[in-house]
Amino acid sequence: MGAGIARLVLEKPGLELAGAYARRAERAGMDVGQAIGIAKDLGVAIEPDLTTAVKHTRPHIAIQATCSKLEDAWPEISIVLRHGVPIISIAEEMAYPACSSPAIAQEMHDLARTEGVAALGTGINPGFVLDLLVIAMTGVCARIDSITATRVNDLSPYGPSVLKAQGIGLGPQAFAAGVESGTVAGHFGFPQSIRMIGSALGLNIGRIEEERRPIVSKVHRETAFVSVAPGQVAGCAHTATAYDGDKPIITLVHPQQIRPELEGVETGDTIEISGMPSFRFEARPEIPGGRGTIAIAVNMIPRVLNAAPGLLTMADLPVPAAMMGDARQFLHARAEERHHG
Amino acid sequence: MGAGIARLVLEKPGLELAGAYARRAERAGMDVGQAIGIAKDLGVAIEPDLTTAVKHTRPHIAIQATCSKLEDAWPEISIVLRHGVPIISIAEEMAYPACSSPAIAQEMHDLARTEGVAALGTGINPGFVLDLLVIAMTGVCARIDSITATRVNDLSPYGPSVLKAQGIGLGPQAFAAGVESGTVAGHFGFPQSIRMIGSALGLNIGRIEEERRPIVSKVHRETAFVSVAPGQVAGCAHTATAYDGDKPIITLVHPQQIRPELEGVETGDTIEISGMPSFRFEARPEIPGGRGTIAIAVNMIPRVLNAAPGLLTMADLPVPAAMMGDARQFLHARAEERHHG
Repeated sequence: MGAGIARLVLEKPGLELAGAYARRAERAGMDVGQAIGIAKDLGVAIEPDLTTAVKHTRPHIAIQATCSKLEDAWPEISIVLRHGVPIISIAEEMAYPACSSPAIAQEMHDLARTEGVAALGTGINPGFVLDLLVIAMTGVCARIDSITATRVNDLSPYGPSVLKAQGIGLGPQAFAAGVESGTVAGHFGFPQSIRMIGSALGLNIGRIEEERRPIVSKVHRETAFVSVAPGQVAGCAHTATAYDGDKPIITLVHPQQIRPELEGVETGDTIEISGMPSFRFEARPEIPGGRGTIAIAVNMIPRVLNAAPGLLTMADLPVPAAMMGDARQFLHARAEERHHG
Repeated sequence: MGAGIARLVLEKPGLELAGAYARRAERAGMDVGQAIGIAKDLGVAIEPDLTTAVKHTRPHIAIQATCSKLEDAWPEISIVLRHGVPIISIAEEMAYPACSSPAIAQEMHDLARTEGVAALGTGINPGFVLDLLVIAMTGVCARIDSITATRVNDLSPYGPSVLKAQGIGLGPQAFAAGVESGTVAGHFGFPQSIRMIGSALGLNIGRIEEERRPIVSKVHRETAFVSVAPGQVAGCAHTATAYDGDKPIITLVHPQQIRPELEGVETGDTIEISGMPSFRFEARPEIPGGRGTIAIAVNMIPRVLNAAPGLLTMADLPVPAAMMGDARQFLHARAEERHHG
């Protein structure tokens, strides 16, 4: 993800890649061009110490693509903010940080305000398909009774770490044990998406129940990274249901598997609103995940630079938009002054 | 529309109907309850003079539902703003006012800033389906090559003035003459939607071409208000294309007709993005127009109260969201202070 974001930053007029930091020690000193797989050297070396990277390069904004969990993301975010640099993170738990830790979220908000900059979590999901887009669709409703949003995607292009987190290649019993022990995690981000929707709509969200079921393959399925025999697990059907009292009010469904087409499963995104009015919106196939996350992280740059200081969610900012032409045209006068004054 | 908005305001906890103004002299002094078709009197009389209405009721916000055109909307908006009252308008040309008159838009922006309040144009379309939703969808794109958005709807519930503006019931020659003279206007709002998208994405929009073709019925179609014989016009197929040089970059398609199902026409909203990535999003049937406009006008109340002063478009504000529970929970501290301090 980090490499894709860096490549897109390099392509966009008005943006410059000021510097780069990587967690992996073996990348220290490597030219960014080589690290992100483009032919030429960029004259920007990967810095293994984040404080040094921020101090030396003095970026106008940072994009974090190093991890999924808030506790893991926070030390890096805190260093960036303490140098007065706004930040966009694609860590899934950053989509709605108060969900994992109200204390860290409050500390982050206070620090960002003290430093006069904004911090935002984004991504395709959480951050867009199963939350921001759902919220936007409800904008034309006088009343919401319930919401169901479904994302059926194809994990075939993904590597071992993603496949393992979905339990792909396991037998059904090993899958159940993995769910129990936490090694089969399924999708990261349901509670974040639910809290973002709940907060934006003023819903009364009580308990959230999550379920991870194995997608047991009837056929042989194979990718470059895994081979699944009939009877083995080809993916994880992960759902989350949020209740208002005993009434299910938000249901998010996200089955992720390899080679869905081999059993006639059509991929896609569907948002169903039941209320006044009721309607259904769908994309067939689904909006691409990896490319979407890369794009939205970069597209949010001017929104975050223009924003009031503090910790923000996607629901606090103007809608994302593709950024065509020179990125600097999207900066408001105040943001320009801050960064060039 | 005004009656529907007033009814929804009355239903929402945390909102109060402070007063009402109507252009039609015959409504002066009538109780609002009677005017909007609810059984009981509300103890709020319709005021025929807008200045008096604003001065006497001192509302926290006004919603305008009196007209379509900017020149027509502006005198009322100016009275409201000059009393320090923020305003939401569903006048179609208010969706992107600089499109009809950069001078009025500038004057409105300056007045709103002087008074420290915000002004916003919204509605289902322009304001949502063919612009804001399109913009949001592009947020996951690294590059946009072209955009096509289509709204196929059903005008059967609408009355004589809407049907006349679409040329419904005319012969094809009378339709062509009506397009020529301007009495067959088709959809109001294409240039506004295109400019809103163009500005949000930084597209280079040159000329905009609009075409209004008759939907000549093959069958007999009838509603409570009009009867259309085979060979007569059942609707107006209105399209607008925006060019970057000679390249069509945004195409908006909005055929509006009565009884589309009689010729097997399926209604719906479709957004097709061609770029990196390309995808297609659709709703079948379309998001209801009248109810959607009423809801979004009311749902935007806290967004406008929280906003920085000035003339705003839907693309400048956080995404709309259905407003469930008490409306006051959506106000930021600054807005609450302004209105209750």
